[in-house]
Amino acid sequence: MTATVWFNGSLVTETLTLDPSDRGLTLGDGLFETIAVFNGKAVWLADHLDRLLDGAAMMGLPVERQAIEAAVAEVLAQAETPHGILRITLTRGPGLRGLAAEGARPSLLITLIPWVRQTLFTPVRLMTASFRRNETSPVSRLKTLSYADNILAARAAAAAGSDDALFLNKRGHVAATTIANVFILRGSRLSTPRVDDGVLPGIARAKLLAIDGGEERKITPTELSAADAVFLTNSLRLVRPVHVLDGRTLRRNDAAVAGFFDALCRRIAEECGIDPREVDAL
Amino acid sequence: MTATVWFNGSLVTETLTLDPSDRGLTLGDGLFETIAVFNGKAVWLADHLDRLLDGAAMMGLPVERQAIEAAVAEVLAQAETPHGILRITLTRGPGLRGLAAEGARPSLLITLIPWVRQTLFTPVRLMTASFRRNETSPVSRLKTLSYADNILAARAAAAAGSDDALFLNKRGHVAATTIANVFILRGSRLSTPRVDDGVLPGIARAKLLAIDGGEERKITPTELSAADAVFLTNSLRLVRPVHVLDGRTLRRNDAAVAGFFDALCRRIAEECGIDPREVDAL
Repeated sequence: MTATVWFNGSLVTETLTLDPSDRGLTLGDGLFETIAVFNGKAVWLADHLDRLLDGAAMMGLPVERQAIEAAVAEVLAQAETPHGILRITLTRGPGLRGLAAEGARPSLLITLIPWVRQTLFTPVRLMTASFRRNETSPVSRLKTLSYADNILAARAAAAAGSDDALFLNKRGHVAATTIANVFILRGSRLSTPRVDDGVLPGIARAKLLAIDGGEERKITPTELSAADAVFLTNSLRLVRPVHVLDGRTLRRNDAAVAGFFDALCRRIAEECGIDPREVDAL
Repeated sequence: MTATVWFNGSLVTETLTLDPSDRGLTLGDGLFETIAVFNGKAVWLADHLDRLLDGAAMMGLPVERQAIEAAVAEVLAQAETPHGILRITLTRGPGLRGLAAEGARPSLLITLIPWVRQTLFTPVRLMTASFRRNETSPVSRLKTLSYADNILAARAAAAAGSDDALFLNKRGHVAATTIANVFILRGSRLSTPRVDDGVLPGIARAKLLAIDGGEERKITPTELSAADAVFLTNSLRLVRPVHVLDGRTLRRNDAAVAGFFDALCRRIAEECGIDPREVDAL
């Protein structure tokens, strides 16, 4: 089974024909979304498109929701596998020189690869990144193609034997990891950093806040040690407990965290007719 | 006259055949250099390659200098015009999912476009960016493909009628603009922010420091107003005086700044046999 690839209007086989001045390639000038697909259905697609279009408006990328929806539908209809990972990549397209220049037309790339086991609910060892998240920049709240900060932090964490890096922001508060939102549980009280702490408004994060009414607030690093449980959310891995931070074992309450995981899995099962845990076990 | 484009081993015509998982396109995971070409000679090429390879080492991008040199030579030999703008783009290449994953092999893209008049020495109106440069991140000192911060700031400046945006860092010191290093002149004393203030180690910046022995030090925003002159350097536009900051007219000493510009132009004339001012006037 290979990837299904759609680029600028049609399905293509394996490779793209790209203008070398495409600003997605030359400047990381664009946005993306990564979406789980179960039973041929893109999970929380409307929420992902809302976020993509909000980001496109902030970056001045003209794009029509219907065009993306139609392209996604075409890709899903062609998929060779019912379960997969869909990625929508939107760039400013071929551009003149000059950072503020407009592109000729945005490029839209949609790929669907077969589901890769996400080892759902696997515990995570975190390492605090050696540098800060820049919450002063709008980019800290957008899923742009400019991921160099995240990549460098993730590589350093992997080199040190950790699974992911935790970013603090310039005020010293907890922001996010390179790929996930952070939640803490204290008693029955759920909290997660605010978006203006330099955090992507995660889709799984929003679903969990809607289900459980958690609080968005500033969180200090010492609160992570004091919490009854720390866990991460993202759209593919859903919920994973954090067991270790900077080599120190954290307090844990995996039963409570599993409850949040279960809630998200059941939401997806309602939407797609299959539970992610069944897919991941295939 | 069209662009000359070389990609992963050979000259191509107009478009690239790109793997849709190339991390340059999907994650801004790579580096670039932009280099003036006069009389078929890439200006300060060795310095640009030094910087590119330093960055590649920091990002864990395996690449051989000789391979890039050979590719650049091939592109220059094929150029349809003696004067142009060369861009070297290095990405981690097609990659597995996962931010810390290695690429299969780096992608190397080299483009040469005909010289575009840079309106050398044109005065600049600067606007202070609404958000900060993140000098805690190594990315602030690397010419990565992750340019979203610079793009958003440049777009905001253009929308407000300014030519470029000035970044302060999180400590409130002067860092750089979206495309240039900043210098101030006070009496005969030249100063520019330190690289660890969140500044790209610019090639024109280094040449000027070597010629004039300026000082690398922290610079506060109030020093910009107090300076006898403020100017910008980059590899294509060389030296441009800043006349306006946030709508306020700055003190200026264009004669002194023109001296620095002249020094760089004469260096290039020695290296390439033509003065950039003659090229720009063509």
